[in-house]
Formats: sequence, C-alpha cells, structure tokens
Amino acid sequence: MIVAQEGDRVILFSKDYKTYSLTLKAGAKFQTHRGVIEHDALIGQPLGREVRSHTGYAFLVLQPSTYDLIRLARRNSQIMFPKDIGYLLLRLNIYPGVRVIEAGTGSGGLTMALARSVRPDGHIYSYDQRADMLQVARQNLDEVGLSAWVTLKERDIAQGFDEVDVDALFLDVREPWVYLPQAYAALKGGGFFGAIVPTTNQVSRLLHDLRINRFSAHEVEEVLVRPYKAVSGRLRPMDRMIAHTGYLIFARKVIDELDEEWFVPKRGRHRAQACEDVDDEW
Amino acid sequence: MIVAQEGDRVILFSKDYKTYSLTLKAGAKFQTHRGVIEHDALIGQPLGREVRSHTGYAFLVLQPSTYDLIRLARRNSQIMFPKDIGYLLLRLNIYPGVRVIEAGTGSGGLTMALARSVRPDGHIYSYDQRADMLQVARQNLDEVGLSAWVTLKERDIAQGFDEVDVDALFLDVREPWVYLPQAYAALKGGGFFGAIVPTTNQVSRLLHDLRINRFSAHEVEEVLVRPYKAVSGRLRPMDRMIAHTGYLIFARKVIDELDEEWFVPKRGRHRAQACEDVDDEW
Amino acid sequence: MIVAQEGDRVILFSKDYKTYSLTLKAGAKFQTHRGVIEHDALIGQPLGREVRSHTGYAFLVLQPSTYDLIRLARRNSQIMFPKDIGYLLLRLNIYPGVRVIEAGTGSGGLTMALARSVRPDGHIYSYDQRADMLQVARQNLDEVGLSAWVTLKERDIAQGFDEVDVDALFLDVREPWVYLPQAYAALKGGGFFGAIVPTTNQVSRLLHDLRINRFSAHEVEEVLVRPYKAVSGRLRPMDRMIAHTGYLIFARKVIDELDEEWFVPKRGRHRAQACEDVDDEW
Amino acid sequence: MIVAQEGDRVILFSKDYKTYSLTLKAGAKFQTHRGVIEHDALIGQPLGREVRSHTGYAFLVLQPSTYDLIRLARRNSQIMFPKDIGYLLLRLNIYPGVRVIEAGTGSGGLTMALARSVRPDGHIYSYDQRADMLQVARQNLDEVGLSAWVTLKERDIAQGFDEVDVDALFLDVREPWVYLPQAYAALKGGGFFGAIVPTTNQVSRLLHDLRINRFSAHEVEEVLVRPYKAVSGRLRPMDRMIAHTGYLIFARKVIDELDEEWFVPKRGRHRAQACEDVDDEW
Repeated sequence: MIVAQEGDRVILFSKDYKTYSLTLKAGAKFQTHRGVIEHDALIGQPLGREVRSHTGYAFLVLQPSTYDLIRLARRNSQIMFPKDIGYLLLRLNIYPGVRVIEAGTGSGGLTMALARSVRPDGHIYSYDQRADMLQVARQNLDEVGLSAWVTLKERDIAQGFDEVDVDALFLDVREPWVYLPQAYAALKGGGFFGAIVPTTNQVSRLLHDLRINRFSAHEVEEVLVRPYKAVSGRLRPMDRMIAHTGYLIFARKVIDELDEEWFVPKRGRHRAQACEDVDDEW
Repeated sequence: MIVAQEGDRVILFSKDYKTYSLTLKAGAKFQTHRGVIEHDALIGQPLGREVRSHTGYAFLVLQPSTYDLIRLARRNSQIMFPKDIGYLLLRLNIYPGVRVIEAGTGSGGLTMALARSVRPDGHIYSYDQRADMLQVARQNLDEVGLSAWVTLKERDIAQGFDEVDVDALFLDVREPWVYLPQAYAALKGGGFFGAIVPTTNQVSRLLHDLRINRFSAHEVEEVLVRPYKAVSGRLRPMDRMIAHTGYLIFARKVIDELDEEWFVPKRGRHRAQACEDVDDEW
Repeated sequence: MIVAQEGDRVILFSKDYKTYSLTLKAGAKFQTHRGVIEHDALIGQPLGREVRSHTGYAFLVLQPSTYDLIRLARRNSQIMFPKDIGYLLLRLNIYPGVRVIEAGTGSGGLTMALARSVRPDGHIYSYDQRADMLQVARQNLDEVGLSAWVTLKERDIAQGFDEVDVDALFLDVREPWVYLPQAYAALKGGGFFGAIVPTTNQVSRLLHDLRINRFSAHEVEEVLVRPYKAVSGRLRPMDRMIAHTGYLIFARKVIDELDEEWFVPKRGRHRAQACEDVDDEW
Repeated sequence: MIVAQEGDRVILFSKDYKTYSLTLKAGAKFQTHRGVIEHDALIGQPLGREVRSHTGYAFLVLQPSTYDLIRLARRNSQIMFPKDIGYLLLRLNIYPGVRVIEAGTGSGGLTMALARSVRPDGHIYSYDQRADMLQVARQNLDEVGLSAWVTLKERDIAQGFDEVDVDALFLDVREPWVYLPQAYAALKGGGFFGAIVPTTNQVSRLLHDLRINRFSAHEVEEVLVRPYKAVSGRLRPMDRMIAHTGYLIFARKVIDELDEEWFVPKRGRHRAQACEDVDDEW
C-alpha cells in the first residue's frame, strides 16, 4: 500500500471545497480555517483518507495534481490558468526530453507544469528581469521538487537568450513582438513558438510581426472552461465563470524565406477545422 | 543542425492549412492534394523548410506536436479532442512515471497523449472490447513509436481491470457508472478518476453513482476552444466552432466511509472558484 | 428640442458606470453616492446633458432603455436578464397587439418588457401566487407607466388561467411541466410556449412532458452575453461573465394528435442550423 | 376559433425541422422537398394543425414568429441574427412609437424586426446605397405587411441623413466611424447609438472615434446562442454552433463637451457588472 512519507507534497481538501497544500515534516502542525492538523497524523498513512482537525472538522488527504500545484502556487503576479497550460503543452509539443525557453517566469506556474512534463531528460530555461518574481518561482519549484529541471535567469530578454536549437519557446510578456528576433535565434528549425496576451490589439501586433520575422502556421485561440455545480439532481453551470485570461498565439519557425501567399487567410482552413463531420473534421 | 532522418514522423503543412503526416522512408513518395513529394527530398534536411511538390506547390516540413498527432491519427470512432486531453492531463496528474488505465481505447487518440506523457518509466493499460478499435489504436501507436508504453487489452471491463494501485483511470464509455466498482478496485487510495460523456443525463447518473461508490471531490467542467482568423488587420473569431464534445467529470477515490455532508453542494466553492480577484481567486 | 418633463423616467449615469433611475418631480432631490442632484436642474432641460451634484460630481442625464428599466427594477427575487428577454421576445412573437400570459410574475422584469412591446392594443396577464412579489411588480410597472397593459393575478396556476386563445405563454416557475395542461388550455392553436429553468434535470423533465401534452417543435437554447472592456487601445473581454441564468425552452401548441415520428431527433436539423454557409444556413 | 385567412403569412414546419414560409392565396399550390400542399387546404382552418403533402408527408401549419420572419427572409447579403437583434432592441430602446434610422438596409432582416416593434406610431428610415439590396428588402417587407412603417432610401450616408431628433440609430456598415458626425446630427440628445462589426480592429477604431464625436457610455458585447439537442433522455449541446457574427457596440449621444475623465476605463464598472451576487448585481 502506498503511504504518505516525510517530504511528500499533499493537499487537504475540505467539504467546502477549500484546498491547502503542505510538505510533510515529522512533528510539524498545519493550520487551516477549521483547526490544526498534525503532520504526524498523515505520515505513514495512505492517501485518500479522511482526517480531522483538532476541532473535528474533516479533510481528505490527497496527492496534488499538476492542476492543484498550479492553482495552489504562491504568487505575486497573475498566474497562467490550467486551462491554457494544458492546451499549450499539446500545442508546443512539450514531452519528456524537450528543451524549452519561457519568459517571463512570473510566479512560476507554467514553469512547474513545463518542468514536470519534460523530466527526466529535458530542461526549462526561464527568464525574468524581476528578481522578486524569480524568488517566488524558485520557492514554488523547490516546494514541489522541480528545481533540478529549471534554470532561472534574471535577464532583460531584449539581450537575447543563451540557448540555441530549443524545441519550444513561450512568451508571457507585455510586448512579445519586440523579442521575435531573439526567439527566432533560440529556436530550432520548425520550432514551436507560443505566446499569451490579454488584448486584441496585442494579438494584431504580434501576428503582424510574426510574419515579418519568418514565423508561419499562425493560429490564435482562446480556451474557456465552464464549471458546473456537480449535483446529480440539480446539474447546472455555475452562475459565473472566468471569461477571459488571454489569447493564445501559436506559430512555427521557418528557415526559408516565404512568399506572401503563405499569409493570405484561407477560407478552406476554417471550413476544414470547424464545419465538417466531427468524425473526420480535423 | 537538426535534420530529419529516416523513420522520423513529420508533417507537411500547406498554405491552405491542410496537414499531412508521414514517416520518412528512403525512396518513398508521398501523394498530396497538390502533387507528389519524394521522401528523399526531406531526409537529411532540416525541419522548418519549404519544399515543393512535383507540381510546384509549397509545403512546410515540420515536426508534429502532440496536438498534431492526435488530430491526424487514423480513426474509426469519434476521437477525443486536444482541448479536452490537455486539460485532463493536468487534472489527472499525468506525468513521467505514472501508471494509467484507460477504457475504451477507441482509436487511441488519448492513448497516444497519455503514453507520450508518462515516458520513460510510466505505463498505459488501455482496454477495449472491440478488436477493430484496438487494431486501429495499435497502428496509430506504432506509427508514432509509442507502443512500448502501452498495453492494449481486448476485454469487457465489467470483468474488472488486471492492475491495482494505478495512479489514474479514465473512462470514455457509454455507461461509465457501471464500472465504478472495477475502477475503485484498480485505483490507489486518493487516485485520480476521470470520465467524459456527451449528455447531461449521463453526467447526472455518474455523479449519483460516484457518490455511492466512495469517490469524492467531484467536479464537472466543459472545455471550449474558440478559434480566430489569425489575420493582423482583420482579427475575428471564426464563424463556427466545435460547441460540444463532452462533459469532463473528475473525482478522487476515498478509502474511508464518508458521511453525507461531503456531498452537499456548497456555495463557498463556487464563489472561491469563479468570483474573487483573478490574482487570488483559486 | 426634446426636453425632460415632470413625470418622465430618467437615469443618471456616472463616470464609474453607476446608473440611477428616477421619476422627475418638481422640487424633489435625488441622493447619489456622489452627492445630491435637484430634480429642478433636470426638468425642462434636454437629455444627453452633463449635470453635477452638489459636490461637483458629473452625471449624464439619459432616457432609460428597456434594458435599463429591467436591470434597474427593484426586485425581491432573481430577475430575468435582458439577454434572455430580448431573445424570447422574438421567439415568442411578442409585438404590438398580442395577448400574453406569464407566470410567475416575480419582480416584474419580464413583465415590463412584455408590456412595452405589446402596446397599445395588446395585454399581459401575469400570475403569481405570492402577494409580496406582485406588490413589487406593481411598483415597478407603475414607476415606468406600464400598469395599464398588465393584469396581475394572485393565483396558484395549478387552478388554471382565466384567458383562452392567448398568443403566447411563458413559464418561469420551478416545475413548469406541472402546468402544461393549463398552458395548453390557454393558448391558441399553434400558440407560442416558452419557459426558463436553471438545471438540466428540469429541461429533461419538461421536454418529456411537453411531448405528451401535445406541444411540438421543441427547441432548447442558452443565450450568453460576453462583455468587453470598451477601450480602443486595450480591447479585451472582461475577466468574468455571467455564465448561466437558465435554459430557454420553446415549443408550439399542436391541435392534432401527432405520431411518434415527430419526436425522433433528426440530424438534418442540426446540420441545417449549425453548419451550412452563414449566408444560407437557416 | 382563430383560422388562417387569405393573405396571412404562415410557415410549414416538418419533422426534419425544415421550415417554409408562404402567404396564403386561394387556389395556389406550394412546393416543398416532400411534395405539394394546396393553399386551400390551409385557408379557413385553424393553425397548429398537421397537414399532409400530396405524397403524405406531414407538416405543422404555424404562424411565424419574428424569429422565423428574420431567418426565412430572402437575402442577397449576410443577414443579422435574431440573437443580436433581440438584444439590441432592448439596448436601443425600440418600442411602439419610436423613430429609428438604420444603415445599411441589407436584405432587411433587422428592418423587419424594427418595423414590427415600433408600430403603430413609430417609423424606420433605412438607408442603403445599393439598389439591389433595397429591392430585396422591399420584397421582404411587403411579404410580411410591414412596408407602411419603413422608408427605404438609396443613399450614400456620407451625405447625411434627412431626419433629426431620431430616438435611435444603428449602423451595419463596413466603416461605421466614418459616419459618426452624420449620426450625431440625426440623433436626439441622449439618443441611442448602436453598431455591429465583425473584427476587433473595427471595434477599436469605432471606440476611438465615438469618443471624439461626443458619444459616451460605450459598451461592447457579444451575444452567443448555444443550441441543444432537445431530447429528454439525451440532452446535450449541439456539436457545433455559430461562434461569431459580430461585436455589438452601444453608445449615447452627449450634447455637452465631456472631459477626458469620462473615457478612462473603470474597474468598478466591471466588478459591478460581472461579479457581485446575481440578485443585486446590476
């Protein structure tokens, strides 16, 4: 039977859907909104159990998912949402062994997801020009044991990236178009480029500049998650939802000069993507 | 410089956003809607290049992403969409090293994504009762070199799963509630359960039965991707979109008996998730 | 030039997008969160002007739209949203001259919109079994001068409606399926039936019972409004939105017995509605 | 009992959700995809009946809703969708008696809805510079008996509108910002301005120019309708939906000069609109 051990990261999940994360340490105590729980009551015990605080309030002891790690990370900046991260991992071809550049690091939410995904042989190079951000990110990575797969660099990326031939590169910065020459220099031929920006004006500007920097196969998408009240007899969407985090932009580095025709939007693509039979549509 | 080699899987991407995938083999020819391309013109050459068919039509030669592998897989059934797969990988805590059960296999779209993610030490056990499905899935896995990480099993899962203590289990079957005892038996304590169903009636039934089978922390969500026409000066959503693939249901295996209170829906959770400041909302 | 007169309903709109509504009365004062405004400063003056409170804070003086009347109505219950009301007015064929039954009245938000739309010759019969609701609705209707077009009735609609041959009937009650015989009796042949319910379970039940009560041409739809930050250089959706108010169900009263075939869902319809060319799709 | 009479507009609705509209005329025949129906079989009979074509195929005979009139109108241009029209009628305060300018007329879909709504005392002034468009619109209006409430004008609106002090004005043209001075001249103080444009670039430009043309209280919104398969035991959203028609922009004519502060976006508004309790949120 699998039991929780000292050093493990676990979450406590309450009946009111509050979630706490902690790293187990013999003798330590954990304070919740509903009383104290002793780490020793968790260590050596299986997961999926119910434990009670000193006030008798019940919590489930669970292993955190990547989703949980992201949403529970400490932060001093807006953090990327799992809905966007999950999608870009597939779009940017993140899998065990790849090398990825990310900027800015921010609080390290995406960094954690990237680092988890590229183990054991891949690596993440994460740039930010703010030391305070990098410090928070480092704490987050340390707590979940992912620091070995990440190199954090304090740098204005206008000065360029140190790496070349990386598999993928993602920009979460205010003016991503400024750094396209640097991104181009760092990526391998055909490498995966991604960015997230909140406004349509930024999307337009980035699309324009991608084109003149020899990136092709542009795509712009939004990911929305609609949560439901998970009640069998009264199933319904929640009253409100996160309506916007950002637009995701994807493109590929092209090593040849491309003629204009590559950038004329085609109706065909739209039809192919959105309107044929589900079974064969993409 | 990274160059394409015999045996590599590559995609050809055209100006009208059509995409073809092929495995490189010396001397072979590939037929597109716009003429023939010789594999030998690709082998030994860098990716991200433009190549031309015998009729002069241009294609980009690119490495496929996980997204591409899924959408280009051959299929004889409805296949899961990357929007759903990317999200559930984070929700079900899929990462290098974990062991996962999946049923049904279908055409193997999700299987490929799972297998890619758990390498090099993890493993996927994928069940389907239809031999024809398993054959298609095997072809898809072989073509992208992932078969070593997947055990395909022809089985009616009502008979149970062979594995125990698996980290995660995902059901894409018509009546997932029928197999909850089997799922419970296969999962480790606190293990990650997920399912996808198309109708609200199925969601209600599954939620009801999860509860009486000692699964907790239920969540129901939909993932929507809204594609845009990626044109700088005329940015706009596409006219149509995939409006529905399925509802995703997530839960955790609990090893204790839980009292009723765990299943009373709480307003608090909703508020916490959807309506506080973005910076601190979850 | 059009000027505001005593008895007119106007709104005050502030720079922080707060909106107040008032009925002009000589000598009266109006209290805002930013100081007092004298009604006499508004009477006899054109609309579209800027006025200032005694503290110097600026407001625009504007005529309220139907949208404003609904959102600013006093309420002691959840009120229907303009997004749903605007759509159902077209779906239920509400226009000058028609006779409409509504239940429950609630705070009278929909009642106001209906009453405005059927003038000068139509009429609204609005039923509610709670006297307190009817009192709020009456106040709302009085304030905007619409009471002459509405008959409010305190009644448990299980006892039936007094009217026959009405053009349209709308149910905003917890168990609309209970009252389908009464609805059938009140509607004219082919008359327009509509309902709103929050949960999928209610939709399923209502669809089932519509069928056995000789209503046909069922449709179920949700209306979503996505608001944007209206800033030219930083255009973007707002962070959050109303994700759910209710499902709208529409049907038509059929006076003949219909065979089963009418109720078998057809793929053709779906294709016709959602997936042909925009220009000719519906 | 209400019966269909010669001259009435009716629809034939089939089991496969196809809908035909016709104006009843003694002795006439109507051709469907499933055989011929004699008008004389409809005249003098109640609505809500089932009739059969000469091949025995069944249709319901129904009165068309405004929704039906719009979707069944003949067209030689993209037509506005009921989802957008229903919402803007509330936003622009369209009700019996108001005077409205619209440009361009297009195929007259919005024109019909406007004309229906302002009867018996209001009027619609609809401008288009293309004679062929106006001809289609005129046919559509004639067929549904609404021509008396509409004045169609063939005109380049850069030359201005003939009317002054109109209550509302709606632009469905490629470059609405070009005509803001003309719109300002035609509207009454505080009058309702609306526009629809498909791209974000157009929204940004229009917002910018509204500001310098003394329009305030800007709002930008999208309306989405999500259709469901209306089947009790297998309730689910349809696979695809219309994902985009256009962005709706609303503003009010201000007759004073406004200081800059009016145009600084406020967080307060967003919060007020999207994130307080549903019961009191707007």
